[in-house]
Amino acid sequence: MKLALWQATPGNGNIEAVFSAICTQLRAAAAAGARLLLVPELILPGYNRPDLHQSLAQPLDGDWVTRLRAEAARQGCGLCFGWAERDGDRVYNAATTIGPDGAVLAHYRKIQLFGPMERSSFLPGDTLCPVFSLEGRRLAMLICYDVEFPQHAGALARAGVGLILVPTANPAGFEHVQRILVPARASEGNCTVAYANLVGPEGDLTFGGLSVIAGPDGQPLASAGARGEALLIVDLAAADLVPVALRSEQAVDYRPARGPA
Amino acid sequence: MKLALWQATPGNGNIEAVFSAICTQLRAAAAAGARLLLVPELILPGYNRPDLHQSLAQPLDGDWVTRLRAEAARQGCGLCFGWAERDGDRVYNAATTIGPDGAVLAHYRKIQLFGPMERSSFLPGDTLCPVFSLEGRRLAMLICYDVEFPQHAGALARAGVGLILVPTANPAGFEHVQRILVPARASEGNCTVAYANLVGPEGDLTFGGLSVIAGPDGQPLASAGARGEALLIVDLAAADLVPVALRSEQAVDYRPARGPA
Repeated sequence: MKLALWQATPGNGNIEAVFSAICTQLRAAAAAGARLLLVPELILPGYNRPDLHQSLAQPLDGDWVTRLRAEAARQGCGLCFGWAERDGDRVYNAATTIGPDGAVLAHYRKIQLFGPMERSSFLPGDTLCPVFSLEGRRLAMLICYDVEFPQHAGALARAGVGLILVPTANPAGFEHVQRILVPARASEGNCTVAYANLVGPEGDLTFGGLSVIAGPDGQPLASAGARGEALLIVDLAAADLVPVALRSEQAVDYRPARGPA
Repeated sequence: MKLALWQATPGNGNIEAVFSAICTQLRAAAAAGARLLLVPELILPGYNRPDLHQSLAQPLDGDWVTRLRAEAARQGCGLCFGWAERDGDRVYNAATTIGPDGAVLAHYRKIQLFGPMERSSFLPGDTLCPVFSLEGRRLAMLICYDVEFPQHAGALARAGVGLILVPTANPAGFEHVQRILVPARASEGNCTVAYANLVGPEGDLTFGGLSVIAGPDGQPLASAGARGEALLIVDLAAADLVPVALRSEQAVDYRPARGPA
């Protein structure tokens, strides 16, 4: 299975421009043979646009997901994207994965909201992403700060997830996440972690790029730079070839311990 | 507080040569103002010497610890070292920290034995290292494979440990531990992790060096190469200066979640 990842510049609140760009990337990903395109957190309506989070948030059966389901089906390439979800009077920092046939494969609400802006815009989720299947693989989603917690990624790995999709919006200055924590989650979980970041300025934030798809040895299958958009397309067969000796056996070996005193 | 770390070549079963080398390193560490010297796993009687593990293992009040307590007191520099401990008919892969006054500050038995050789030589411990104090800091030990488990390092971090001492014996080919997992434990635990490896051949194993002292931003305060012995000495004040914005707040922010389905 080929996976595509789009490191995107922020859309600055221009919803139609974001739709147009996603459609362009979907077309390119499909042409390269990818079955799924991963894009950043809150690509709709924009991460650092708290003025739009409540006012533009859509329901799961609303305009945004409906249009993107149709576009995914048209291109024959699935899509995992972050967006602001309205459920009655509640608004969540959500991610949804649509299959190459346009079906909703899974929906998830960010558990670990980061910082005062997110906590002001959104309510947190309380349930890990359900495990879902694509091309015979077991997948799940986390969003941004979620993946920094070994507990959450570990729970997915122990449930047999082989590919964790992570839409994110990580500012410059926090590159330890891409360089250390994401590879660690992949290595200790014996899985692949795809972390799709924004890049460039949006209001008072500048996103740091360095999007990465880390294999089960913790090494990148591909990574993007810190400047400018990028489309990464990898064949996950390369991750399947990581030797057993370099794969974590933590899930089998872990021994609960008492203490510390 | 200054911390010293000795990346050592294996002693090849020559116990007196190991004692002599530890004493030399203690003297150098003390001369540089270090209050503690960290040395690798099973420095006594040797990691890849399963022929010696049972036959030479000593009790906590036996010859090895008694001599090293006296030497630490003489030099005025503490010592954390890995060794084979006999307790009646049980033998453990242990580590002990001796203070600069020669007192035993803490003793620990490795929980996560790695591979068939270790499991043949040793029984596993079942209790995390007690938290102990030195120079106003809170310390604890893990041994080698233990630190790869976020659960164990996380439990110590949540108990307020600011410095995790890790004697290790990590072969070449597994550099993801030094490069990814140890920095991840430091970053996600908002603590410093010192990982003292062996370097060079011992029987059918070659140890990979790359010993590292990783600060709470996941960045090395110092690191050694993959070839040859090294003595690293750092002032932990440099770790204290890592800005709050780069320090994990996971311990406060963590939200237990249901699932995955």
